[in-house]
Amino acid sequence: QQKWFDTKKEILSWVSIFVIGFLTAMIAFGIDTVIRYLTEWKITTVTNSMRVCEHNNCIGTSLLLLASFNLAFVLIAALLVVYGEPLAAGSGIPEIKCYLNGVKVRNVTRLRTLFCKAVGVLFSVSGGLLVGKEGPMIHSGGVIGGGVPQFQSLSIKNFKFNIPYFRSDRDKRDFVSAGAAAGVAAAFGAPIGGVLFSLEEGCSFWNQSLTWKTVNLFCTMTSTFTLNFFLSGTLDHSWGSFSQSGLLTFGVFECPPHKNCHLWTLVDLIIFILIGVGGGLFGMVFNAINTRLTIFRLKYLAKTHKIARVLEALLIGFLTTVVAFLTPLWIGQCRAILNSFQVPSANSTLPPLQLDENSNSSLQRFLCPPGQYNDMATLFYNDQETAIKQLFHHSGEFTLETLGLFFIFFFLLSCLTYGSSVPSGLFVPCILCGAAYGRFYQINPSISSYLNMSHIYLGTFSLIGAAAFLGGVVRMTISLTVILIECTNEISLSLPIMVTLMVAKWIGDIANHGLYDIHIFLKSVPLLEWEVPSIAKSLTAIDIMNTRLKFVYPHTRVRSIVNLLRTTAHNSFPVVTMKLPEIESKSKLASANLRYRSSSHVTRMQVERDRARTRSQLETELVEVGLSDDESSAESSANEKLRFGRGERCIASSSESGISGLKDNLQPMTFHGMILRTHLTTMLKNHISYNQYDGAPSQEIISYEKFNEDYPRFTDIHEMNFDDLNLNQIMDVTPYMHPCPYVVHPDSPVPQVFNLFRTMGLRHLPVINSRGEVLGLITRHNLTHEYIEEVLKSRNPVF
Amino acid sequence: QQKWFDTKKEILSWVSIFVIGFLTAMIAFGIDTVIRYLTEWKITTVTNSMRVCEHNNCIGTSLLLLASFNLAFVLIAALLVVYGEPLAAGSGIPEIKCYLNGVKVRNVTRLRTLFCKAVGVLFSVSGGLLVGKEGPMIHSGGVIGGGVPQFQSLSIKNFKFNIPYFRSDRDKRDFVSAGAAAGVAAAFGAPIGGVLFSLEEGCSFWNQSLTWKTVNLFCTMTSTFTLNFFLSGTLDHSWGSFSQSGLLTFGVFECPPHKNCHLWTLVDLIIFILIGVGGGLFGMVFNAINTRLTIFRLKYLAKTHKIARVLEALLIGFLTTVVAFLTPLWIGQCRAILNSFQVPSANSTLPPLQLDENSNSSLQRFLCPPGQYNDMATLFYNDQETAIKQLFHHSGEFTLETLGLFFIFFFLLSCLTYGSSVPSGLFVPCILCGAAYGRFYQINPSISSYLNMSHIYLGTFSLIGAAAFLGGVVRMTISLTVILIECTNEISLSLPIMVTLMVAKWIGDIANHGLYDIHIFLKSVPLLEWEVPSIAKSLTAIDIMNTRLKFVYPHTRVRSIVNLLRTTAHNSFPVVTMKLPEIESKSKLASANLRYRSSSHVTRMQVERDRARTRSQLETELVEVGLSDDESSAESSANEKLRFGRGERCIASSSESGISGLKDNLQPMTFHGMILRTHLTTMLKNHISYNQYDGAPSQEIISYEKFNEDYPRFTDIHEMNFDDLNLNQIMDVTPYMHPCPYVVHPDSPVPQVFNLFRTMGLRHLPVINSRGEVLGLITRHNLTHEYIEEVLKSRNPVF
Repeated sequence: QQKWFDTKKEILSWVSIFVIGFLTAMIAFGIDTVIRYLTEWKITTVTNSMRVCEHNNCIGTSLLLLASFNLAFVLIAALLVVYGEPLAAGSGIPEIKCYLNGVKVRNVTRLRTLFCKAVGVLFSVSGGLLVGKEGPMIHSGGVIGGGVPQFQSLSIKNFKFNIPYFRSDRDKRDFVSAGAAAGVAAAFGAPIGGVLFSLEEGCSFWNQSLTWKTVNLFCTMTSTFTLNFFLSGTLDHSWGSFSQSGLLTFGVFECPPHKNCHLWTLVDLIIFILIGVGGGLFGMVFNAINTRLTIFRLKYLAKTHKIARVLEALLIGFLTTVVAFLTPLWIGQCRAILNSFQVPSANSTLPPLQLDENSNSSLQRFLCPPGQYNDMATLFYNDQETAIKQLFHHSGEFTLETLGLFFIFFFLLSCLTYGSSVPSGLFVPCILCGAAYGRFYQINPSISSYLNMSHIYLGTFSLIGAAAFLGGVVRMTISLTVILIECTNEISLSLPIMVTLMVAKWIGDIANHGLYDIHIFLKSVPLLEWEVPSIAKSLTAIDIMNTRLKFVYPHTRVRSIVNLLRTTAHNSFPVVTMKLPEIESKSKLASANLRYRSSSHVTRMQVERDRARTRSQLETELVEVGLSDDESSAESSANEKLRFGRGERCIASSSESGISGLKDNLQPMTFHGMILRTHLTTMLKNHISYNQYDGAPSQEIISYEKFNEDYPRFTDIHEMNFDDLNLNQIMDVTPYMHPCPYVVHPDSPVPQVFNLFRTMGLRHLPVINSRGEVLGLITRHNLTHEYIEEVLKSRNPVF
Repeated sequence: QQKWFDTKKEILSWVSIFVIGFLTAMIAFGIDTVIRYLTEWKITTVTNSMRVCEHNNCIGTSLLLLASFNLAFVLIAALLVVYGEPLAAGSGIPEIKCYLNGVKVRNVTRLRTLFCKAVGVLFSVSGGLLVGKEGPMIHSGGVIGGGVPQFQSLSIKNFKFNIPYFRSDRDKRDFVSAGAAAGVAAAFGAPIGGVLFSLEEGCSFWNQSLTWKTVNLFCTMTSTFTLNFFLSGTLDHSWGSFSQSGLLTFGVFECPPHKNCHLWTLVDLIIFILIGVGGGLFGMVFNAINTRLTIFRLKYLAKTHKIARVLEALLIGFLTTVVAFLTPLWIGQCRAILNSFQVPSANSTLPPLQLDENSNSSLQRFLCPPGQYNDMATLFYNDQETAIKQLFHHSGEFTLETLGLFFIFFFLLSCLTYGSSVPSGLFVPCILCGAAYGRFYQINPSISSYLNMSHIYLGTFSLIGAAAFLGGVVRMTISLTVILIECTNEISLSLPIMVTLMVAKWIGDIANHGLYDIHIFLKSVPLLEWEVPSIAKSLTAIDIMNTRLKFVYPHTRVRSIVNLLRTTAHNSFPVVTMKLPEIESKSKLASANLRYRSSSHVTRMQVERDRARTRSQLETELVEVGLSDDESSAESSANEKLRFGRGERCIASSSESGISGLKDNLQPMTFHGMILRTHLTTMLKNHISYNQYDGAPSQEIISYEKFNEDYPRFTDIHEMNFDDLNLNQIMDVTPYMHPCPYVVHPDSPVPQVFNLFRTMGLRHLPVINSRGEVLGLITRHNLTHEYIEEVLKSRNPVF
């Protein structure tokens, strides 16, 4: 039976994974197609109006037309975010990163979020904002990954199958990571990059098993090729073939056959490193500016009326429109379209029918005379993917001034846009900005001539520039390298890309963190880093643990449980019993005086340190008790009285208090297990308790399935109806607790604790001494860099 | 100071990694270049002799010449392996896999092994054996990875820097995995595949940190591009460019521009799956035959005189030579060389100068009239890389009969070769065999016409065939997929490759394991799988732990330690003290009666089970004591007497016995830490002990550096000189033990134990109950599938 269950579960997970990959690709396909149509509609209408106005001198009308298009689109996007689901703002990668790191972010995997994000990004991109659609696609993939394996929807009640296989946070996280990987795979056509993305972001909370990695790769492959299939069908009209490798493709990096050129040579690495340094600096500035902006937004805009955020988005939209329209008019230069044939273009000798048709049609005439194009408009007035390809593969179209001004405007505008209340990806703007930056190196005559670079394929510099800028802003390494390699489909460019990314990251890391991490930090999410600071080696578990325990007894009165749940927000509680009084009286300080009770090498200094620590703990506790609200402390002391009035040997009667008081923390408490908040609420909901005056205490047993029925939205204690609850009953939590979770010894060094916590994806780690007594609890908060540094500082004030 | 240490260590690790990547690439380059020259010399000489003999009718002479070349080369390879280092036989991947899995394989990372392997593979490949050079390159990379960061050599005494940073098994393992990844990267030009290879094989014992992954990628990139650089320089004479992507390249998969063809379409997936099924079946048969052969070899050849193994290799070499020479003569067909222009060749429209020159020069004339080629000779009488490219990219050269017979001969011969006493990679033979198999689908007219496949690039089928066969034999998934994708440099082929590999693996797994795993299993290495069988959920730590503890006391007499180390082979010992007698007398069964001493839900049945378990344990112990050798049991009882004659409160005097006796295991023993065998030997060597009759017992303190001075070859206890050792001194091990290793509770379910053990890369996991008493020790042996299944069987005999 167990075997059949396992087989069924495995089949279901493969099916789920296929569906996740497929749906993610379909959403990406939908987003792409709709954006394509909306943009085409907009550009065609405005261009037609320009053609009319050229002669009637009414360019203002065209601008107004463009602005009204853009503002209408941006308005829809902003409304969806502000009034629909605020979590849909931004790229979504920080949210997914937090989720995969083990932090529960409310609503992050809801259907409503998906809708607002996917529809919102349609309009924010179509509205001409300098945002990408890749980040939102990754988030969408994550939502689908979290949703599909549940086989039910909480938003749409009727959609429900009874397949309760993956109802745990751990399973769900695995599928969310697979979905996010599928999103990456669809967005960049990068199946391997997708897997590595979920490895780099989801990291240790990633399912370790090999099977799961295979499943993940299958998911990204499904996603990539589903999208490829539909794109090939609709764009190339060749259903069944796979000719469109992804939404963001960089074109073919290939030397024209007649020329003896290389993609790069060894000496170019020096220039690539220079580009990387520059990209790192730009990224650093970008992040610094955006940090200020985000702090400003959190301070002023988040608190005022929602309409302010909508207006902000509209303002940015208007600004972008004006810049995108006026710069071509004033700064852009009209150049004959034949230019692209005269200069030694990279693609000039390839079969000329297709590529040049494309590149010509993507050269924007704007207000230039027929047969000419406006170089600034080609960059600003096109969709961003086309502009990227222009920068990568065509040489000589743009003047140095055009590129420079484009870079500056684009840099500032995209920096302004990221973080406003619209769905906004970061990848494409960064790539475009970086590609323009990379072209400086390429068209700067002094550099080119100095190194005699005519034998180098020029697109390489744009690509490296894009990598440098992107690396400087987001600071990812492995997954970004692989994604970019897969986008270029050229393994021989992998070394330059990697070197540039690493250099950019190192340079940028001097001043600040990656933009995603900054946004996570500003939202004060306790993200677990990859490693603890090496200075933490001097600390042990006892130094960082949380000693203000909230615990339950194996047999607790319902009233206490309700009070405990109401007055705390903890997600998990240790189940403990008090030590017998004869031991208690003998060793008040036993809980801190941990090991080698009779050992020879406990020095006096150590004992003194322990005593001092206990004393400070005592003071802290006093403060805490003083601050706690009346009801609970009254309850607590009442219970304490009750407990001490009874005999000590009967656990059922001696353990009715669930609230930790001052005294309890100093008494040694024997650890029995951990119980989750959700289990306690489910027990309350199902009236699992017994009457203490019954002869043989017995309570109902409920099944594991019953416990997970409500996943992921368990009943909240504050919404619960206590009318039919007998508060004097006693609950036996022992059958439902986890009797042997991972624990650590108080003397374990912090790096070891961190490893265990992070690698095993834990949420609570009890600190148990060698007598089996619980001394404290380590949660994610105790392992963040900030907390550890604080502890270190408090111990060594001079440090 | 700590910071400076860390920085220095990080810089050193980057430097080491660069050197590892560079050296690995240089070794790969050396192997490749020498093989190229040797093979050219051989083929030129033999072909010249054939040209002469064509007219003089002395073909036998040519065959003899070829045979003497081949046998001489094979002899050198076999001598190096048999008399040099037996570990150099085979591909080396099983050995690396074991090492990365945490099993210590003797000599696997020695310089001598590297020499024998690298030089041996030169001659085994040049000797015409059907072996690849990729596996040995991966092993070579692993050796370099293990060696470089030590900054010293144990073989060459003079080569020694004093940089003792990475002297631990864990660090060394990390570098070995990086080196192996560099080997993969060099062999296949696959930097990402290399990283994933070390992830798939080294898996959980892989350093989890992100930095390390980046370092690893840097290593593979260095390796790939160093090799690329030197190959481009020597082969293409263009130093500085990077045009040769790896040793094993599959050529360009690209449709000729004039044809409207695709690499593959959706319907082809069905055929790919069919190919995968076939590949899985062939792989299954291959592995089954090779298993029998290996068992035979282990049974008869391993025990006899070494010369037998050399003769076996020579016999295989002779057989291969005869087949490779006679089949072209008898079965091969002479075909006009213009054929390749007449048939619609894939490359016919590309600039004809280079590619066709190559392909023509690689078509072997053999004994055909000038202007013609022999199709069998083109496959058999070429080096294998050329033959692979022929099969991938040229259509119409080979008849169905030629391919069929080639496949059969090649299949049998390579199956015979793998496992003999020469260095022998498995990848290239499998790819070649699979490519021939894949061509069946391609040139089989009924299949081609049925699916109207003229629009499909035909090389795809050979590639898929190669993937299927390779997948069927080695059963890797992710890393193999990525390696093959990087070899083809075409991301759009990733889905077919992955689907085929997965199908082949599934089909093959029905009957047996991958060939590497079979060889590991036959050497009875306790490899840890990825997961425990799901049936193990019903077991807990106490069910699988090893209860026959060998332990030491915190203060132990030197004599006991020496005896303990001499009579056991364990690598780690728990440090324990006995419980005080008053507790002991109260609860004889306390060690098995673990939790909830006063809890209400321990049922009578559970107690009974515990009692039964203890009783059976008792019986086992009795047997063990009866079987143990005289000296140790006498020592043990003598010490016990000694201990019980003294007072109980003085640890120093009550704990002189280090050998576990019958009584000890039933007494509760308080756990204090773990101490390694190497630490005990180092303490003995440095005379760290004190005299018990001194007033204030004190002993020297030695530093961590001192402990790791001898790494990796610590003094063996049997080689130690005890003359100047005072056996009556007492050693205090507490300063050197690990006081808080990861431990598990006896009730922890086995999957949880397994996860902890595997993910953290442990070697010993003490089982500690909630009183802090050690009940047993879990080692790798207790977590193998075999052991767990045995335990399950002994508990449920009907099962």
